[in-house]
Amino acid sequence: MKTQLERIQRDIEALSAFNATPGQGLTRLSFTPEHAQAAQYIQQAMEAAGLKVRTDPIGTLIGRLEGTDPTAPVVMVGSHFDSVKHGGNFDGPAGIVTALETARVIHDEGITPRHPMEFVAMIEEEGARFGSGLFGSRGMTGRLTQEELASNHDDQGISTAQAMEAFGLDPARYRDAVRPKGEIGSFLELHIEQGPILESTGTQVGIVETVVGICNLEITIEGRPDHAGTTPMDMRADALLAAAKLTLFVNQAAIQAGNGTVGTVGKLSLLPGSGNIVPGWVQFTVDVRSPRGDCVNQVREALFEEIRRLTQENDQLTIKVRTLMEMDPVTLDPHVRQVLQEQGEAAGLTTRTMSSGAGHDAMVMADIAHVGLVFVPSKGGRSHCPEEWTDYNQLQNGVELVCRTAMALAAEE
Amino acid sequence: MKTQLERIQRDIEALSAFNATPGQGLTRLSFTPEHAQAAQYIQQAMEAAGLKVRTDPIGTLIGRLEGTDPTAPVVMVGSHFDSVKHGGNFDGPAGIVTALETARVIHDEGITPRHPMEFVAMIEEEGARFGSGLFGSRGMTGRLTQEELASNHDDQGISTAQAMEAFGLDPARYRDAVRPKGEIGSFLELHIEQGPILESTGTQVGIVETVVGICNLEITIEGRPDHAGTTPMDMRADALLAAAKLTLFVNQAAIQAGNGTVGTVGKLSLLPGSGNIVPGWVQFTVDVRSPRGDCVNQVREALFEEIRRLTQENDQLTIKVRTLMEMDPVTLDPHVRQVLQEQGEAAGLTTRTMSSGAGHDAMVMADIAHVGLVFVPSKGGRSHCPEEWTDYNQLQNGVELVCRTAMALAAEE
Repeated sequence: MKTQLERIQRDIEALSAFNATPGQGLTRLSFTPEHAQAAQYIQQAMEAAGLKVRTDPIGTLIGRLEGTDPTAPVVMVGSHFDSVKHGGNFDGPAGIVTALETARVIHDEGITPRHPMEFVAMIEEEGARFGSGLFGSRGMTGRLTQEELASNHDDQGISTAQAMEAFGLDPARYRDAVRPKGEIGSFLELHIEQGPILESTGTQVGIVETVVGICNLEITIEGRPDHAGTTPMDMRADALLAAAKLTLFVNQAAIQAGNGTVGTVGKLSLLPGSGNIVPGWVQFTVDVRSPRGDCVNQVREALFEEIRRLTQENDQLTIKVRTLMEMDPVTLDPHVRQVLQEQGEAAGLTTRTMSSGAGHDAMVMADIAHVGLVFVPSKGGRSHCPEEWTDYNQLQNGVELVCRTAMALAAEE
Repeated sequence: MKTQLERIQRDIEALSAFNATPGQGLTRLSFTPEHAQAAQYIQQAMEAAGLKVRTDPIGTLIGRLEGTDPTAPVVMVGSHFDSVKHGGNFDGPAGIVTALETARVIHDEGITPRHPMEFVAMIEEEGARFGSGLFGSRGMTGRLTQEELASNHDDQGISTAQAMEAFGLDPARYRDAVRPKGEIGSFLELHIEQGPILESTGTQVGIVETVVGICNLEITIEGRPDHAGTTPMDMRADALLAAAKLTLFVNQAAIQAGNGTVGTVGKLSLLPGSGNIVPGWVQFTVDVRSPRGDCVNQVREALFEEIRRLTQENDQLTIKVRTLMEMDPVTLDPHVRQVLQEQGEAAGLTTRTMSSGAGHDAMVMADIAHVGLVFVPSKGGRSHCPEEWTDYNQLQNGVELVCRTAMALAAEE
C-alpha cells in the first residue's frame, strides 16, 4: 500500500499527463479531450474513496459522502483542474489532490461524519479558454448568465455554450448548478501560493485572510489599416499605437495606486498583422487586482479617462470596453480561519496569515459558505509557467491541515 | 473584340478572384494555390499575346518577345502579383495588367522591336508570407541568400525553401535567377500610388524620381511569464510592456526625424497570451522609411540606443534585433524619366515628378537596369486594404504611358 506522500505524487503526475502541450508546460482547457481524461481519473479516484459521484450541469465533478445528520450543512473541499496555457502542474491540481486525500483518509479510517461532505473538482477557473474564469464556483453560486455562455468565445470562435454542448452538457440547464444558500456550510480550498512569501519566510502553510478584488476588461480599438510607407505619421489611425499607450498607462496607474495593486495586459491580438500595414484593429485584455477595492476602482476610472483622452486626440479611433469580470475583495470566514489556526498548531505546522493576490474559487464560494483558503509554498514564487513547483512534502503539510480542518468542521454540532 | 478599357477591367477582376479571403480583402500569398491560379492566368494571357513564357528558378513568370537585334539589352516591363493579407486588388496587379497590355498592343500592331522585350510577373514583393519582400527582383539582381531561404518562415513555421519545394521549385537553384549586368537595359513598372498626392492635385500620372530607403527589423523580447495577480509590479520582466515602450518610441523617433520619415510596428505576437499571465515573450516588426537615408539611420540608431536603455533598466529582459531588409533610397534613371516625360506630353497626360514612399521591385531592379516607375492615383490614398481602388480609365492612362515608353526604349539605337 502506498504512503500518503506517494499517493500525492502519483495523483499530481497522473493529472499532469492530461496535457495538450507536452514538453511546453501544462495546457488543459475546459471541454477538451484533456479535460475529459482528467475528469475520468478524478471520478475513478473519488469512487475508490467511497464517494457517490455526479457531474453538475456546468461540468463540476462532485463526490458526496453522506453524514449522520442529513439536515446538517455540507462541508465541501475542492479546487479546479483546468489550467492556463503552458502553465504548471500544481495550480488547481494541488487542491484536487487535497480533496481526494481528505476523502481517502476519512474512508480508510472508516469515519462517518455528522455533516454530509462533498469533494469537488471545478473547471474554467483560469478563464484560459473563454476569457472569464471562476466558472465552476460562479455556476454554483448563481453568478453565471445566459448572455455570458452565448457571447464568450474561445480563439476558434466557439462559444462557451457550444463547447458545453459538444462536451455532452446542456447549457440551458446552467441554473440547475446553483446551490441554495444554507445548503453548503463551509468550503475549504488548498492552493499553491503563486508568490514568494511562504518560501522567503520559511513558513509551511499560509492561512488566507483577504482575497484581492479583480477587474478584467477586454478593450477593442478600431483604427484604419493604411500602407506603412505612404501614410504620413499625422494622418494615421494606428490601433496598435493606441494599445501601446494604454498598456503603459495600465502599468503606471497600478504602480501609482500602490497598496499591492497590480495591472497587466496579458493577451493582445491585431489585424491585419503585416509588417507593412498600419494596424487597423487591436483587441487586448486588462487585469487589475488589489486587496483594496478603492484601488481597483481608481485604476479603472483613470483608464476610462485615458481612453476618452485618446479618442479625443484622434477622432479616427474608436475604443470599446467590455467588462469580463469584476470581484470585490473578500475577507474570509473568521471561524474557519480560527479552526485552521488551531489544527495547524495541533499538527505542529508553522503558519502565517496572508492575503491572496490571485482570485480563487474560494473567493466566489464565500457568497454562500464559510470559506477557508490554505496556501502551500511555490518554488521561486513562480506560477502559470512550466517551472511552477511545490515539493510533495510541502503539499502534504497543506493536505494534513485541510484534512484535519474538514474533519473538525464536519464533526461540529 | 474588347476595348483596352474592357481588357484592363477583365484582367483586374479575374486576378482578384484568386484570393484566400473572399469578402475580406485580397490575400494572395506566395507559393499557395491562389498564387498558382493567378500564375496560370497570367501565363495564358502572355502566350495569347505571342510571348514565349518561362518560370524562373524562384517563381517569377517571364514572357519574352525577341527583337531584331539579339545583342541589344532587354527592355523589361512588369510588377508583382502577390498581395498583403486582406489587401486590395490593385497593388501589384495594376502593373501586371500594364505589362500584359503592352505586350498585347505590340502583338496586335504586329511590331517587332529592335530590343528583345520581357514582360515579368514577380512574387513575394510584399513579404506578407516570409517577412522580407521584393523577392522576385532580389532574386533577379543577386540579392537573395541561401541563409534567407532557410531561415525565413511563415506563420506555420514553413521556410521559404520548403514552400518553394512544395510548389515544385528547386530552392538550391535560386542563383540561376540572377540576370548578369548588361543583359537588361531598362525596367519599367507601373504601380498604384498608395498615397493621396495624385488624387488631391488632380494629376493623371506620377513619374517617380526617388524611392524611399527602408529598414525592416524583427525584434524579439524575452522576459518571464509570471502570474498576473501575485507578481508585484517591481519584480516583473514583462515583455509586452517593453514592446509597448518600443512601439511608442518608433513612432516618436520617426516624427522627430521628419522629412517624410515614417515608422510602423505592424505585426506583433506574444506568449503565452493569457489575460492572467504577464507576457514572457513578444516578437514584433519595425518598418522605417524615408526619402533620406540619414533619417532612416537616425531612427534605427535611436531605437538601438533605447533597446540598450531598456535592458539596462531591467536586466531580466533580453532583446534581440534581426534585420529583415535594408535598402538605401534610390534615384531612378534620368534618361528613362525623360522619355516618360516626353511620352506623357505626347499622349496629352498631366504628369508630376514625385517620390515613392513604398518600396517596389523597380527600386531593386535599379541595381542592374535603367529604371522608370509610374504611379496612377489611389482613391483616398488608401492601399493595403479592401478599399484600395483606382478607376480603370485612370489605370489606362498609366498603361498608355508605359506602353509608349516601352516601345520608344525598345526602338532606341
